[in-house]
Amino acid sequence: MSGPPGVEIERKFLPTRLPDGVAAGERLEQGYLAVAPDGTEVRIRRRAGRSTLTVKSGPAQVRVEEELEIDDRRFEALWALTEGRRIAKTRHLVPLGNGLTAEVDVYAEALDGLLTAEVEFGSSEASAAFAPPDWLGAEVTGDARYANQSLALAGIPV
Amino acid sequence: MSGPPGVEIERKFLPTRLPDGVAAGERLEQGYLAVAPDGTEVRIRRRAGRSTLTVKSGPAQVRVEEELEIDDRRFEALWALTEGRRIAKTRHLVPLGNGLTAEVDVYAEALDGLLTAEVEFGSSEASAAFAPPDWLGAEVTGDARYANQSLALAGIPV
Repeated sequence: MSGPPGVEIERKFLPTRLPDGVAAGERLEQGYLAVAPDGTEVRIRRRAGRSTLTVKSGPAQVRVEEELEIDDRRFEALWALTEGRRIAKTRHLVPLGNGLTAEVDVYAEALDGLLTAEVEFGSSEASAAFAPPDWLGAEVTGDARYANQSLALAGIPV
Repeated sequence: MSGPPGVEIERKFLPTRLPDGVAAGERLEQGYLAVAPDGTEVRIRRRAGRSTLTVKSGPAQVRVEEELEIDDRRFEALWALTEGRRIAKTRHLVPLGNGLTAEVDVYAEALDGLLTAEVEFGSSEASAAFAPPDWLGAEVTGDARYANQSLALAGIPV
């Protein structure tokens, strides 16, 4: 059971804590080099020892996403240019049963104290039928303030 | 005779026409993907069949410039995201005598009608002693409105 290609069906939540017994997560660092007024963004990311530079189109543009691999020296040089536009977080995968998994991100540094959780579904019926456990907290599906770009540039929503 | 490493001594002019008998130039296309408020810029460029993506720090930042080679497919995909932030020009090299050369850029498309010329010198003494020929036109050395980024984003200065 899977949705149409390229369409992600997701719900997003704001847990206030990690559930007990969650396995160690994976550290992810992401910084924005620049974002154009039309939303075109250029970001670098380091995850599991692999560094990439990604250019992504804005919402009103033809959809483009190009990822370039960069080496450690380049990542470090470019990272210096992302100050004030960064996200650092640790991602934990938390099984929810029924084949569902919550990706729980625990933010650090400028966004310390924030947790978000995303659950991806194979169909809109499965998404609608999902009864979130209490620990997932308030739902913020579709709230643009919790997108990575917005968190990096504007910080934790108040 | 050369200046300190990394320092370019240049004067910039606004010719109103190419001098007679100038050889065919080289086409150069450059588009900005995004520019951050601190001046960090990400641009792509195609010149002599070679395409690159360059990230360059802004004026108040530690100096960083990283150039990544990209293939034709990537250049075309990313070019679509630079609409309204492009420069297309043909560069002609015009010998001036005394070992000096003017790089004369004849702009096209959105900047059609504009010509700029840059002359690079080996020392500040040579720069001060240079008597520009009439065809070079008005001098605009140091005028930030004629920098590539500004021309691409704001157009021809009025």
